[in-house]
Amino acid sequence: MADKLTGNLLVGQSGGPTAVINSSLCGVVQEAMKHEQIQGIYGAVHGVEGILKEQMIDLRQESAETIDLLRQTPSAALGSCRRKLKESDYGRILGIFQKYNIRYFHYIGGNDSQDSSYQISKLATDRGYELRVIGVPKTVDNDLDVTDHSPGYGSVARFIAIATRDAGLDTEAIGVVDTVKIIETMGRNAGWITAGAALAKEEPDDAPHLVYVPERTLDLDQFLSDVQRVYDRLGYAVVAVCEGLKNKKGESIVASGSAIDTDSFGHKQHGGVGDFLCDVIKNKIQLKARCDKPATIQRVSMIAASSVDLAEAYQVGVVAVREAVAGKTDFMVTLVRQPGKTYSCTTGLATLVDAANKEKKLPDHFINPEGNGLTEAFLDYARPLIGGPLPRYARLKKRLVKREG
Amino acid sequence: MADKLTGNLLVGQSGGPTAVINSSLCGVVQEAMKHEQIQGIYGAVHGVEGILKEQMIDLRQESAETIDLLRQTPSAALGSCRRKLKESDYGRILGIFQKYNIRYFHYIGGNDSQDSSYQISKLATDRGYELRVIGVPKTVDNDLDVTDHSPGYGSVARFIAIATRDAGLDTEAIGVVDTVKIIETMGRNAGWITAGAALAKEEPDDAPHLVYVPERTLDLDQFLSDVQRVYDRLGYAVVAVCEGLKNKKGESIVASGSAIDTDSFGHKQHGGVGDFLCDVIKNKIQLKARCDKPATIQRVSMIAASSVDLAEAYQVGVVAVREAVAGKTDFMVTLVRQPGKTYSCTTGLATLVDAANKEKKLPDHFINPEGNGLTEAFLDYARPLIGGPLPRYARLKKRLVKREG
Repeated sequence: MADKLTGNLLVGQSGGPTAVINSSLCGVVQEAMKHEQIQGIYGAVHGVEGILKEQMIDLRQESAETIDLLRQTPSAALGSCRRKLKESDYGRILGIFQKYNIRYFHYIGGNDSQDSSYQISKLATDRGYELRVIGVPKTVDNDLDVTDHSPGYGSVARFIAIATRDAGLDTEAIGVVDTVKIIETMGRNAGWITAGAALAKEEPDDAPHLVYVPERTLDLDQFLSDVQRVYDRLGYAVVAVCEGLKNKKGESIVASGSAIDTDSFGHKQHGGVGDFLCDVIKNKIQLKARCDKPATIQRVSMIAASSVDLAEAYQVGVVAVREAVAGKTDFMVTLVRQPGKTYSCTTGLATLVDAANKEKKLPDHFINPEGNGLTEAFLDYARPLIGGPLPRYARLKKRLVKREG
Repeated sequence: MADKLTGNLLVGQSGGPTAVINSSLCGVVQEAMKHEQIQGIYGAVHGVEGILKEQMIDLRQESAETIDLLRQTPSAALGSCRRKLKESDYGRILGIFQKYNIRYFHYIGGNDSQDSSYQISKLATDRGYELRVIGVPKTVDNDLDVTDHSPGYGSVARFIAIATRDAGLDTEAIGVVDTVKIIETMGRNAGWITAGAALAKEEPDDAPHLVYVPERTLDLDQFLSDVQRVYDRLGYAVVAVCEGLKNKKGESIVASGSAIDTDSFGHKQHGGVGDFLCDVIKNKIQLKARCDKPATIQRVSMIAASSVDLAEAYQVGVVAVREAVAGKTDFMVTLVRQPGKTYSCTTGLATLVDAANKEKKLPDHFINPEGNGLTEAFLDYARPLIGGPLPRYARLKKRLVKREG
């Protein structure tokens, strides 16, 4: 057991808000309250932005009930940011830590946030300022490499799975009007969120019929022939696409698509990948197409939050404080899936430098050979994360009444 | 009490699927099973499309459990359609009714569907074919005039309210990146769905800060100055807009906007009103802007369905069959709000011709004088329909730590 390090704790939230990042905040605060060496429990307003401005909330002033309610409150209650720190910022931050006797620092976020934590931790060591830095993972993008999965991902995957199933039933019911439904999901470089759509499928003909992730380049001719084939078989098609889809040259397909679109003058196009692909479908294979783009709703929606995700997000917050109190520093808490038939996860630690610098994309064996769907291996990986099966719906047998005359 | 009319019942679903149209179907089927004069219980596959093709499902072949599950199943389980019938179709339909001894007809839908029912009912009377036609209201657009509100509306309003609140928290947390958030809702001519966003607001500074409905023409300069004013006060802005927004000439603002946009060549623009307004904001007042467009997800999402809406949708189905069995015909079931402080609704009847031909828009006193928000009168009207308060979230007091030195 390390010597007791007495001082204040600072927690911050960074990057895109999620349904569960406040659960991690709650875990940090509730665990911190159990340790007498932790005096002030401070929350950075808008992450490192607030630290640099010396804007910190006194979380001990909040009622126990409010802190508890954080577990069911989406978005980032402290405020978030996307500031990429400069070299000179780290010195300023450390100076502020010294001024406010911050001895425990927990930054909840993705790769960039873990990198910020790493730089601060390194500088503290260099300057001989005793500081315990344990990062808390969070990203809907699920692209932190050192953890089995990241808090935030299970909930966005559940939202996209439910949205895809519901939009699929909608399209099946009224395919005569909305023949091709495109669901555009978030994800710049990694297709984890888009892949979540695959969890909607229970029977072979269920939506989604096609899923395109940025780990594969999109060939528009192949895409159109895929859509046409589904339409020919079912009379409608439901397609999940990632906002980050790129062509062979590595350009966004929206920017690159002007050559095949009506607008060949290179003018700025409104909308994203989904609207663009709808127009391509209308122009090239003359099918009606429509895009659903839940955008930020997908990442913060509490109504579809995964119970597993919520619990794990809380737990990584708790463990971060426990490990710091126990003397650890310069780590990020990870989720470690245990072997066995029933899903279970424990926590582990990865060094901050490892957490910061590796981006995890969908591995090859999670994507089908055609590049238009996910494999069973992906489904096995993702299914436990969304917190139980999707709500049960009726499926009519649809026995036709015998034709008369 | 009318003579017992023995024969088969046909139920169909029409127009855009909703979260609750299957609850109405369930109500029709479960009530029909209680009446011995109703023999076959048939479901039209894709509404009038299926009738014309003599494609009907035998709903007595479905298990009681499946029928019951319809109450929690979104979209239109029988399949829906948008076919506008021609004069000659009505004769064909009546011929098919005679051939299959259809004596009870319940079409679940909006204005057009009630008009189809009206035409079929009139022709049956003219030809002396005894037929009981009682329409069942359904439309997320809430534009049926003869009923206090329409089943489907409460659920889409709840979805939009929750989405707006969550997206608002997201924007508040990370306004530095997504400074202006636009939520584009459905609604071609009436702003009921967009108005639902107003239910997200609990405190004066909560999202949405601005709401634009098609009952008022959109002036882009006024819009930009509204957005700028909110931004100047809060540092971010959340705006709900209707997909059907029009300019003073009655044109869609997307089609009409090329003059002020970068593209002045009249080229086809991807995306809708929301993406268009984001680009206008970026170009004219240089704020970052982003659009959430849940599209069909909003109308079918069961995860945000209103318990009141689900119960009422079931009830109007039940009552339609009861009234038909009691001898009534040529009516649509309506919802009649009762006076008093606590919300309660009974059912009534409106003639099909009245139900078909009146479109209900937001009345003037539901829209604020500035044309950028809703009034208390609207909130009083809509709040009971969404089935109880929105989920409770934590609100931090945010007492700042005293600045050192």
